[in-house]
Amino acid sequence: MITNRQVVLASYVTDAAQPENFALSEGPIPEPAEGEFLLRNMYFSMEPAIRGWVDGKANYFAPIPIGGVIRGPSVGQVIKSRNNDFVEGEYVFALNQWEDYSICHSDAILLEKLQPEDGIPLSYYVGSLGGAGATAYIGLHEVGQIQAGQTVVVSAAAGATGSMAGQIAKLCGCTVIGIVGSDDKAQLIVDEFGFDAAINYKTDDITAAVMAIAPEGADIYFDNVGGPVLNAMLPAMKVYGRIVGCGMISDYNRTDNPNPITNLWEMVSRQLTMQGFLLPTYQAKVPAAMAQLEEWIRAEKITVIENITEGFANTPTAFCELMSGQTVGKALVKIDL
Amino acid sequence: MITNRQVVLASYVTDAAQPENFALSEGPIPEPAEGEFLLRNMYFSMEPAIRGWVDGKANYFAPIPIGGVIRGPSVGQVIKSRNNDFVEGEYVFALNQWEDYSICHSDAILLEKLQPEDGIPLSYYVGSLGGAGATAYIGLHEVGQIQAGQTVVVSAAAGATGSMAGQIAKLCGCTVIGIVGSDDKAQLIVDEFGFDAAINYKTDDITAAVMAIAPEGADIYFDNVGGPVLNAMLPAMKVYGRIVGCGMISDYNRTDNPNPITNLWEMVSRQLTMQGFLLPTYQAKVPAAMAQLEEWIRAEKITVIENITEGFANTPTAFCELMSGQTVGKALVKIDL
Repeated sequence: MITNRQVVLASYVTDAAQPENFALSEGPIPEPAEGEFLLRNMYFSMEPAIRGWVDGKANYFAPIPIGGVIRGPSVGQVIKSRNNDFVEGEYVFALNQWEDYSICHSDAILLEKLQPEDGIPLSYYVGSLGGAGATAYIGLHEVGQIQAGQTVVVSAAAGATGSMAGQIAKLCGCTVIGIVGSDDKAQLIVDEFGFDAAINYKTDDITAAVMAIAPEGADIYFDNVGGPVLNAMLPAMKVYGRIVGCGMISDYNRTDNPNPITNLWEMVSRQLTMQGFLLPTYQAKVPAAMAQLEEWIRAEKITVIENITEGFANTPTAFCELMSGQTVGKALVKIDL
Repeated sequence: MITNRQVVLASYVTDAAQPENFALSEGPIPEPAEGEFLLRNMYFSMEPAIRGWVDGKANYFAPIPIGGVIRGPSVGQVIKSRNNDFVEGEYVFALNQWEDYSICHSDAILLEKLQPEDGIPLSYYVGSLGGAGATAYIGLHEVGQIQAGQTVVVSAAAGATGSMAGQIAKLCGCTVIGIVGSDDKAQLIVDEFGFDAAINYKTDDITAAVMAIAPEGADIYFDNVGGPVLNAMLPAMKVYGRIVGCGMISDYNRTDNPNPITNLWEMVSRQLTMQGFLLPTYQAKVPAAMAQLEEWIRAEKITVIENITEGFANTPTAFCELMSGQTVGKALVKIDL
């Protein structure tokens, strides 16, 4: 008998996520109701945002309860449908759950119908052509109001979203500086992703390093990390600069004791704008962003690095590795079914 | 012989400003060069921003050196002119200096020609119809994008800018909550300035108090203080809310050790926008703002409270009183000449 494997929350995550915080479970394969369709999940997207949903506290989503299936974006194929807009065989990206089979519907968060192109691996639609690519593109354009000739600084620059943000900013005609946590990553983002310069936040003075490269400061800081890196970027911003608030991974393991920010006076003194955003707010802008990214990827103007973990049962481990900061590129799980 | 009295910086201010940080000096009355005009100053505007210019450190302005005349906005009358746009007898507001006679020119910061109306005291053009009024109006409209029906929270609400911001927000059809530092001020802003509610940050839980009044949170927070009040407002903002970064007076006496902000994750989670601004950036918008404010004041829709110190020599004391947080309304000095 075929069952639906699921990853559920075994205990609330209070510090760094551990595989023991998760458990494998099995349930029946759900039946779509009218208007719904059933997906067979093929890839799970490992995302830092998931860390914010497994600590038992509400943020922009209700917390996942103990025993609840983990919520996360996936790429899946429609295998049964009671929704005229989605027919069997089609592929979709959406915020689903860590399980073999997910029920989906037209109003699902982040839902996008995929039309995989020849020569583009389906897994790309999890990351560079999924949430990470869309977040980077929309963050730079809609929030950052990017313009050619600007200086753009990106943190977590070797990661899924950061590596896309840096490459998109380069394609927009900007000078791009990446902030990473190791010399290996610094080398990687320059060599593989084409950043103009890299800063290792563990060994470099971020403020001084940015100002040495861009004496007037950064026009845009695409912030994936918050905390001390954000604090050091505030005095490295150009007057009227914009800070794109995408994530604050440096605080995700310490939500009860977030890193203190002490340089906010720069917001007034430099007349900065900081704007936080979540991708679902810009859902209407996603198709155009995806079309542009597909074009760039097909033309090999964007390099995609994937970190693929094989096997459903390894999903918790893959997530914990991502959160440890050891991975580069897009972390995802390929489901064995 | 008539000389030009001046207030100069005697020592850099490192903590709370003290009268001893300033000294009285005298110099010759300057002669306007071609394109310049000479003002006899009539009122000095006491402003927290001046604190940021007397600590020997650069911010958006060069620091005032030891022995340098203090920079500050004033209202003065043109008494000699070599500029065709400004004739003797006219009144102007501009960023001048603390002295009897100031040289001014067409490109002076904050320069505005005044056309004092019958029934409106000239002193109003220092505050409610000067920098404070313009800052409040432009901060709410250009930065806060205020709309009728919103909930607006204002800090330092009994002060010159805060009291104007609250009254303008009420006239725009908003629910207005003021944050102040004493029960007397709380009473005052409700009774005299028409705020809907007041919070005493020294005794109330700001986050809980705002949410009790506006369960969905604030659409706009007009921030004059930064620090713990800003930190407490972040979790009291509505999704997509806007924080108007006008000033951070809580940090002005501790620039080497600013108050830590720990709730910035709310920027992402609630998709907030925080934008710092300085009035000179919006100079082109000032005349229309002033016209609206004059109309409201003439119609007695706005209440102006002034805290007038008489006598040039008392200027340092008046400034130190303002910075102590003890005053309400617009603090200004009337010059005895």
